[in-house]
Amino acid sequence: MEQTKYLLDESQLPRRWYNVAADLPSAPAPVLHPGTGQPVGPDDLAPLFPMELILQEVSTEPEIAIPEEVLEIYRLWRPTPLYRARRLERAAGTRSRIFYKYEGVSPPGSHKPNTAVAQAFYNKREGRTRLATETGAGQWGSALAFACKLIGLECKVYMVRISYEQKPNRRSLIQAWGATIVPSPSEETQSGRAILEQRPDSPGSLGIAISEAVEDAAGRDDTAYSLGSVLNHVLLHQTVIGQEALAQMELAGAFPDVVVGCVGGGSNFAGLAFPFLREKIAGREIDVLACEPEACPTLTRGVFAYDFGDTSKLTPLVPMHTLGHDFVPEPIHAGGLRYHGAAPLVSQLLREGLIRAEAYLQTDVFASAVLFAETEGIIPAPEASHAIHGALKAAREADEAGEERTILFNLSGHGHFDMAAYDNYFAGKLEDVALDEEEIERALRAIEGLPTPA
Amino acid sequence: MEQTKYLLDESQLPRRWYNVAADLPSAPAPVLHPGTGQPVGPDDLAPLFPMELILQEVSTEPEIAIPEEVLEIYRLWRPTPLYRARRLERAAGTRSRIFYKYEGVSPPGSHKPNTAVAQAFYNKREGRTRLATETGAGQWGSALAFACKLIGLECKVYMVRISYEQKPNRRSLIQAWGATIVPSPSEETQSGRAILEQRPDSPGSLGIAISEAVEDAAGRDDTAYSLGSVLNHVLLHQTVIGQEALAQMELAGAFPDVVVGCVGGGSNFAGLAFPFLREKIAGREIDVLACEPEACPTLTRGVFAYDFGDTSKLTPLVPMHTLGHDFVPEPIHAGGLRYHGAAPLVSQLLREGLIRAEAYLQTDVFASAVLFAETEGIIPAPEASHAIHGALKAAREADEAGEERTILFNLSGHGHFDMAAYDNYFAGKLEDVALDEEEIERALRAIEGLPTPA
Repeated sequence: MEQTKYLLDESQLPRRWYNVAADLPSAPAPVLHPGTGQPVGPDDLAPLFPMELILQEVSTEPEIAIPEEVLEIYRLWRPTPLYRARRLERAAGTRSRIFYKYEGVSPPGSHKPNTAVAQAFYNKREGRTRLATETGAGQWGSALAFACKLIGLECKVYMVRISYEQKPNRRSLIQAWGATIVPSPSEETQSGRAILEQRPDSPGSLGIAISEAVEDAAGRDDTAYSLGSVLNHVLLHQTVIGQEALAQMELAGAFPDVVVGCVGGGSNFAGLAFPFLREKIAGREIDVLACEPEACPTLTRGVFAYDFGDTSKLTPLVPMHTLGHDFVPEPIHAGGLRYHGAAPLVSQLLREGLIRAEAYLQTDVFASAVLFAETEGIIPAPEASHAIHGALKAAREADEAGEERTILFNLSGHGHFDMAAYDNYFAGKLEDVALDEEEIERALRAIEGLPTPA
Repeated sequence: MEQTKYLLDESQLPRRWYNVAADLPSAPAPVLHPGTGQPVGPDDLAPLFPMELILQEVSTEPEIAIPEEVLEIYRLWRPTPLYRARRLERAAGTRSRIFYKYEGVSPPGSHKPNTAVAQAFYNKREGRTRLATETGAGQWGSALAFACKLIGLECKVYMVRISYEQKPNRRSLIQAWGATIVPSPSEETQSGRAILEQRPDSPGSLGIAISEAVEDAAGRDDTAYSLGSVLNHVLLHQTVIGQEALAQMELAGAFPDVVVGCVGGGSNFAGLAFPFLREKIAGREIDVLACEPEACPTLTRGVFAYDFGDTSKLTPLVPMHTLGHDFVPEPIHAGGLRYHGAAPLVSQLLREGLIRAEAYLQTDVFASAVLFAETEGIIPAPEASHAIHGALKAAREADEAGEERTILFNLSGHGHFDMAAYDNYFAGKLEDVALDEEEIERALRAIEGLPTPA
């Protein structure tokens, strides 16, 4: 009988994260202090992050040991399964082989706890008792709430008000794991109060929520700030995905010609792709594909530049592919992909031609999501469905070229908390958003006058 | 490092279901035709079920082979993991060992597809192209929609109207897998129209929805009826759970002193417990505990009698523990446990003293559910949380007796579509329902005059 799943025993759980920064052809540009224009040092970051994470942020070691305490929690759901998508292949009529790594088996239902648990652990070890963070649709907020509950920290989540109201189930999840949650903008921070004064009915935004969480963490010794994507240490923690997938592809007797992931900030893409990029940098031929929404085409239509991580310009300047910090993407259903920038490491890899990127319309993405649900059974998250769509497109292109490829994608989460998006799709109510040149140009004006990376 | 999960490779997927009817000390009483009072034969059932399922319903073979085509779909999520709940044990401060089998990894999120896939397969093989069923909260409806999509059948789901309106996410799940869903009572059947004539705003009930689905199936040659619990063949298909668990407990180097499951109709309880009862009947000492809600205490306070399976008295007479077919349980959050009867096989085992039963209040059950979520991470379904509560109670009793026991329970599903219940619990809005003697007596009047099982 043909095999469907490739499982690792928990004794085969990887003991090390892989740090792609060690193997990059050229060193990434430093993060800059916006006031001085000088590289940001550990002391600048210490009020917000524990020292171990600051060191990981700038590490050039190729491998970093995963602490035993983190492994103990990973084992609640890791190693995650790797599937051969035989039914999807048949339905798509492709001659290529499609594999996927499934991160939706974690209790919060996505890849996010891979870093949430690590961040909670290092913070606790260095004496913090409380973490503050922001969340949009709630995937990150629920993952951090989960991690804090298991590690034993308090957790405060500033949730974008419109999501707080429209996504009651992810809010409930955050509460079930004992975190304190408040709709943002809130009355609890200066940033929040300032916004509410101007506009009492503000629906909030990720930028505002970041400002509130950073202010909360900066103002309290017991509290650190925690981010769910973009930063080097966050991407590092996600590489446990690809480390496992390398071993599982070996079990399957195969190696991918194409590796695919969706990109918002870039963490799940990095998690799967970086360990395979290590092989690519060492000389192996792999096509590494990042998939993003046309409504927020950071990698395909943004520029590589220094920009702020948030709309309120509170963060350091980060060298990354960006659409400009003022850019507010349309409210598409893949809420986790609506970020104006992409992780510096992912941006650097794109710049060096080690990865490529494509952007898709959301109705096309949902059509692929439904085909996946009808064949493989799992209801995919809208974000992860971009990777499904990318994998199917790569398979079709291989068929057209008369080739048989081995394609591996990251199914980063399930869609149990996104069923309203499916309802809209079936009702024909999903709108496609593609930006015209003028909108892109206008958005990019926000970065005029900022320093340029070498 | 201590092991958390015990996994089987898919090559270790059981090839046979276990049929407890073969090993019962005395044969179960037959199902009766309500008109003639005579045992129901295959011909009576043929309009509603395929012959293979009718034969399984009355089989006395101890093992029945699982068809290859069913195994192929099982492998999308089976074998399911068996966990040692070390964090829960520590939090509960018990000296006993607690294991759980986790069925929430199936795409619909519960044990229900174990039988849905088998039923869809046999129906398709015997030429049916369409299945009709009822669903309350939507667990069964979504499992059958999933199975029909993968096997290649049409599926029609009559969903209790109040759930249709209050549980939009399970409804969406059913639609995402391509089934046609209609709120019940509907205009599409005589039974539905009759109810709507009397009461246009009827919220519906499982009894009404069963009547509509049966009428639909009986009236069309291409359509069979499909039931998610109670019947012997349904329980049979669920035994793949316990077959796996036997092998996994061996991997863990342990054997359970106590086996625990929640009971509504009885299918997930049976699925885990029957293969262990085979060992018990062969002489091994095991305490087998069925957990039910105080709001619907079929096993603890009902009687063993002949009764109808539905409120409208359309079904044959079934020998079972029952509260009377008129009994309408209060709307507690464990919707899947609100059934007036219990499966004949489970009822017979209780009668013979091979299993025992306990009933719990829902606030106590939710307290255990939250402790589980805080320690093991997984958000449990309210139904499955009865088994968590039962396992914790058994551990406490062992501690009080100065004993160390090995306890195994079935975590039959996750609670991703039940977050509103958690909100109510945290808001202190859950109401406990326990019935007084008079209510039980009044409910049982419905079975007066019906035949009595030997």
